[in-house]
Amino acid sequence: MSERQITDIDAYMADLGRRARAASRGLARATTRQKNDALSAIADAIDGRREAIVAANQIDLEQGAAKGLDAALLDRLELTEGRIDTMIEGLRQIAALPDPIGAITDLDYRPSGIQVGRMRVPLGVVGIIYESRPNVTADAAGLCLKSGNATLLRGGSEAFESNQAIAACIGQGLVEAGLPADGVQVVATTDRAAVGAMIAMPEFVDVVIPRGGKGLIERISREARVPVIKHLDGICHVFIDADADLDKAFDIAMNAKTQRYGTCNTMETLVVDEAVAATILPRLASAYREKGVELRGCARTREILPEAIAATEADWDTEYLAPILAIRVVSGLDAAMDHIAAHGSAHTDAIVTEDYSRARRFLREVDSSSVMVNASTRFADGFEYGLGAEIGISTDKFHARGPVGLEGLTSVKFVVLGDGEVRT
Amino acid sequence: MSERQITDIDAYMADLGRRARAASRGLARATTRQKNDALSAIADAIDGRREAIVAANQIDLEQGAAKGLDAALLDRLELTEGRIDTMIEGLRQIAALPDPIGAITDLDYRPSGIQVGRMRVPLGVVGIIYESRPNVTADAAGLCLKSGNATLLRGGSEAFESNQAIAACIGQGLVEAGLPADGVQVVATTDRAAVGAMIAMPEFVDVVIPRGGKGLIERISREARVPVIKHLDGICHVFIDADADLDKAFDIAMNAKTQRYGTCNTMETLVVDEAVAATILPRLASAYREKGVELRGCARTREILPEAIAATEADWDTEYLAPILAIRVVSGLDAAMDHIAAHGSAHTDAIVTEDYSRARRFLREVDSSSVMVNASTRFADGFEYGLGAEIGISTDKFHARGPVGLEGLTSVKFVVLGDGEVRT
Repeated sequence: MSERQITDIDAYMADLGRRARAASRGLARATTRQKNDALSAIADAIDGRREAIVAANQIDLEQGAAKGLDAALLDRLELTEGRIDTMIEGLRQIAALPDPIGAITDLDYRPSGIQVGRMRVPLGVVGIIYESRPNVTADAAGLCLKSGNATLLRGGSEAFESNQAIAACIGQGLVEAGLPADGVQVVATTDRAAVGAMIAMPEFVDVVIPRGGKGLIERISREARVPVIKHLDGICHVFIDADADLDKAFDIAMNAKTQRYGTCNTMETLVVDEAVAATILPRLASAYREKGVELRGCARTREILPEAIAATEADWDTEYLAPILAIRVVSGLDAAMDHIAAHGSAHTDAIVTEDYSRARRFLREVDSSSVMVNASTRFADGFEYGLGAEIGISTDKFHARGPVGLEGLTSVKFVVLGDGEVRT
Repeated sequence: MSERQITDIDAYMADLGRRARAASRGLARATTRQKNDALSAIADAIDGRREAIVAANQIDLEQGAAKGLDAALLDRLELTEGRIDTMIEGLRQIAALPDPIGAITDLDYRPSGIQVGRMRVPLGVVGIIYESRPNVTADAAGLCLKSGNATLLRGGSEAFESNQAIAACIGQGLVEAGLPADGVQVVATTDRAAVGAMIAMPEFVDVVIPRGGKGLIERISREARVPVIKHLDGICHVFIDADADLDKAFDIAMNAKTQRYGTCNTMETLVVDEAVAATILPRLASAYREKGVELRGCARTREILPEAIAATEADWDTEYLAPILAIRVVSGLDAAMDHIAAHGSAHTDAIVTEDYSRARRFLREVDSSSVMVNASTRFADGFEYGLGAEIGISTDKFHARGPVGLEGLTSVKFVVLGDGEVRT
């Protein structure tokens, strides 16, 4: 399969959008069984077409190498047999999740005699814009399908052939299950104008989810004329309170920083109450040193850890995504929460404390998508939270916040059941 | 009070925004008692300053009359003693509503040992842009305050003095309750650039709710760089199914059209199954004629009601807000739902039927913010639904849909309670 010759990108995207909108009605009323059958059929099609997928991926890898893509990017691009297994397994897991669509809650009688409740419904058409990992094509299509949405997928140009090969499997699965083939469409051009067109069609696209680097996400947020579910920074904090259990504090601070460095829920700044700083910091510093973590501290931190580099103001606002940790010693809970409010990114922040009232205040007053007591920030994740799957993590407050599972791809409508009631 | 001399509107609005953002932290952690005390104090202040409010309103009315505003606009602008009573009563009702903020739901244990739940939190800063009714100043401020948000209010220029007088009462109430005076700010300029500035400050404003004419709302939706909760058309349908109870159908069709003509949840198009059209339409037409409702019908309607005007394609897409009704005879449920999907505005649509399966299909498949069986579309309203109050009705799917009460002004964050757990 090779790239189609498309000259009028706006017309092409409008056509995809129109077809997605038309297909969305069929997907919205699809039964749970139909959707699960389609997910299984897609998984089977991927399993049955492994050779074609690997061959397409090989073309992408060769072209990428020829273009001089770096090793990390080529690694993300590669579809090994193991990664194909993971895609298949992911689709089967989505099939096993409960169907959110159609569920009615809070169906209460009102004084007028009518019953009023809320029914969960799909958003309609979801646009996903992503970069090099071709497995997103199957994952995102699966989540949108299960939640009854039509999907427009726009992957990275470097994964074009891989994405088209996976798209063929998705189309086959939809048709086998009797669902509209246009329910999932993968954009068949690498022209960057396709992204601009997709985010400017509110008549055809109900939400766009960009997944990729900060530059891509900022550009899309700025230019979109449709709602965006987005993830920007993850500047996460752990605050070790004066009444922390210091063994828990040690475990959490080590895990939050060192379990993985490149993830958005990794701690970037450790905030420590002055009452316990001299006790806990040397113990932590020694363990961080063993792991090769560079420490950058405020003046009071450096009184305790003279080997730490002096932190600048910029350090408090930096998402390192690397073995670097900023450390600040503060005079108590209020100073810690002020620091988090001023420098955090409202992603995930944790307090370590045995004090009931301070735990309660931290939970209520810290305005982040995940707020934790005595747990590692690394738990901020759709699977760990029991959402079953995750299409992304939202750092917005509007519509969806924190890890976004199937529910974030839905809305609710009011349902009213009456017996001829009229309003007086 | 008179209009301030403000030369740099962008700087002025940025200052309001910065102060709102700062105040929002205090409001987010305010106790239920503090918020209710503030609502009562504002109500008392309005009650105590009736003379000043009426005097300010008198200036607006005189200036409006001098500018040649029409009688309907002057009527909306007027603050009678009865309307002031209603404002006061509205604030006391908001105080009596349950506080949504801080409520934790679904706090479940996960296999890792952590407990994960969701806590309801304010959105942060809410901007309200509205036109001539000054009572919105008190209503909107009350709802935003109860939901823990800071508010920027931008009323119509013709109600400037009235809004400033009400703003003084709000400020007094906030201070008396120990809440930040900047928690509710009323824009003190009539310069239209203030609206443009407010909708372009995502760093200070979390959502904008425009209330007013379609022109205002479309302009704001097009230009906003912050999320918008908006209400566009209300092209509502009642479908009388072949198995309708015709007495219920008669009552609902009459009430949905004639109880009030100018409201968004008024029926604009009646859709009738061909099996019952000849029975129900003459009876309805006679009653509509008595009420002075003009009928515009499709060809099949006019075979039954020759006196009806021939409907054009444009009629199916028109929100009359007037004693005019479009009528279409269709061949069954699917044709009715196709008509609603093609011509409706996804606001409120009802079926009248005694058939279980068709009722169930209509509820599931019609994609509108309110979907009803055997009830008048006029019930689509925050008070009738038991939301306690209503800041507006959303015709969007994203974030809030249908009547928007306190919950639409909130978001949720994840809360995680642990005992030292780390991720492995």
